[in-house]
Amino acid sequence: MYRKEIKITDCTIRDGGLINKWQFSHEMVRKVFLAVNQSGVDAMELGYRASRKMFDPKIYGPWRFTTDEDVRKIIKDTPVNMKLGVMVDIGRVEEDDIAPCEESPLDFIRVATYIHDIDKAIALAKHIDSKGYESFINIMAISTAPEFELIAALKQIEEETNVTAVNIVDSFGALYSESVHHLVKLFQENLTKKNVGIHAHNNQQLGFANTIEAIRKNVNYLDATVSGIGRGAGNCPLELLLSFLKNPKYNLEPVLQVLEDVFLDLRKKIEWGYLIPYMITGVLNEHPRVAIAVRQDEENKDKFAEFYRTMTTPESSSEE
Amino acid sequence: MYRKEIKITDCTIRDGGLINKWQFSHEMVRKVFLAVNQSGVDAMELGYRASRKMFDPKIYGPWRFTTDEDVRKIIKDTPVNMKLGVMVDIGRVEEDDIAPCEESPLDFIRVATYIHDIDKAIALAKHIDSKGYESFINIMAISTAPEFELIAALKQIEEETNVTAVNIVDSFGALYSESVHHLVKLFQENLTKKNVGIHAHNNQQLGFANTIEAIRKNVNYLDATVSGIGRGAGNCPLELLLSFLKNPKYNLEPVLQVLEDVFLDLRKKIEWGYLIPYMITGVLNEHPRVAIAVRQDEENKDKFAEFYRTMTTPESSSEE
Repeated sequence: MYRKEIKITDCTIRDGGLINKWQFSHEMVRKVFLAVNQSGVDAMELGYRASRKMFDPKIYGPWRFTTDEDVRKIIKDTPVNMKLGVMVDIGRVEEDDIAPCEESPLDFIRVATYIHDIDKAIALAKHIDSKGYESFINIMAISTAPEFELIAALKQIEEETNVTAVNIVDSFGALYSESVHHLVKLFQENLTKKNVGIHAHNNQQLGFANTIEAIRKNVNYLDATVSGIGRGAGNCPLELLLSFLKNPKYNLEPVLQVLEDVFLDLRKKIEWGYLIPYMITGVLNEHPRVAIAVRQDEENKDKFAEFYRTMTTPESSSEE
Repeated sequence: MYRKEIKITDCTIRDGGLINKWQFSHEMVRKVFLAVNQSGVDAMELGYRASRKMFDPKIYGPWRFTTDEDVRKIIKDTPVNMKLGVMVDIGRVEEDDIAPCEESPLDFIRVATYIHDIDKAIALAKHIDSKGYESFINIMAISTAPEFELIAALKQIEEETNVTAVNIVDSFGALYSESVHHLVKLFQENLTKKNVGIHAHNNQQLGFANTIEAIRKNVNYLDATVSGIGRGAGNCPLELLLSFLKNPKYNLEPVLQVLEDVFLDLRKKIEWGYLIPYMITGVLNEHPRVAIAVRQDEENKDKFAEFYRTMTTPESSSEE
């Protein structure tokens, strides 16, 4: 199973922050950083980079903005064994928010996009590249992307950008092994000069399994989070991925330690992971927002059968 | 995905009882029975059949023994849409414990065996068959069975018994997709006149994923439990399996309803599911008993890194 080309990106803070508006303390982020840095993981995404003009810093925590200054506070004088980066969303970051790479502690920036925004994503990736960062494009909600549009988008990314990898993002947690195999083949056929990556969600308890299936099909860029933390059902758990990969450079123990020290308490305060409403939106290939809403409604959060009936009754299912 | 040959066996009460010594009330078992009966699931295993001489009924609940009388109390006058059965362990049941099938409400009996007890399992399966029941053999701890012994055992089962299916039981939760594919092929090659089944465990969040992989390789006998209940990390969740299969005869709603009505409360009293100690024994291909023990030790249950160190230090790892 050992393949030296495999690169893991830890997205614990970035994706976990989707649950609590990135209200993680610097002390907590430092602990996660130290654990991931010791584990041999190849890269860590410390949050989103976004404009303070678009998000209120009174509502959103520091990792919605992830300034270079905040990143330096996390690193302190620790030797960094991995690449550090942030994610940006189309239209939520301004060119001035991104300093030249040589002035920043960051090495890479990933652009998250839906298929219909691919032209904007390419422009942003090129801007990031021009500033000296390694760039990536993550195509979200992949399970609903029309295949002819996806092929066109991949060809365009291949020709027009300098991205290191394009990531398959199963935002709805709707994929299973055969759909992973199909998408990986499609990506590989249309991206002969770029790498392919995967970011799997756990709505159907398939986050880790789908990542394994991508690995089997020669995908080398893998996303994971400590304890699978992430919005809704969460992601591929880093501890499972490190246990599975036989690369001697990875070390599970610091991840288990921080899981025990930080994430057990965190789980008492914020909820993530496999729960029936997320399973239902995953199975139905829908955005998890309705499931997230029902989980925040104390009176109805556990009314699984009723939620399923609502979601499968044609006139009331979400249409957007 | 629809394949009419697929048969699901619900093992909720039998496998769930491993956590609480089968101390489920008749009322609870009746609720599960009604839900499974409405869901279109093909078979339900109501417990173990065992001799009262070997287990103390003051310690073990009714579903350790699952008498025909208890089964009748569950069915009442409800029309039964599925096959009903029990599991037996080698050496823990006496011939007299099994009445002729025509006098019993049960349709099938499954024999659970380790590879080294295969001769006893075959004898017991033949006895069950001679009493008129449909018989099955479940080979436990499959991830540690030496392959040459396994091949010999399968050939012997093929020649000497009348079992409907032989089930791959991943007791340690150690399998992943490629090992499932390998074992399924081995079983199919050596069992040309029998069916192959799978009973997957969730130590690595792969219970459902491994069941999908077996389905993809034409395995038709599938075990699952409501909410994945089962000893340690538990099993393939029935709600996920029913959502995945496209067979129109299956109905998810009664399963979601009983999950909500019964299993949410039950989960507050007894623990099962993916937890780090079970992940570690799964990854190491070890019996979960040490992980179960640590989860019952209030002081050490969450000391994940220490548990991992203990399990991976050669002199202290379990050897049996």
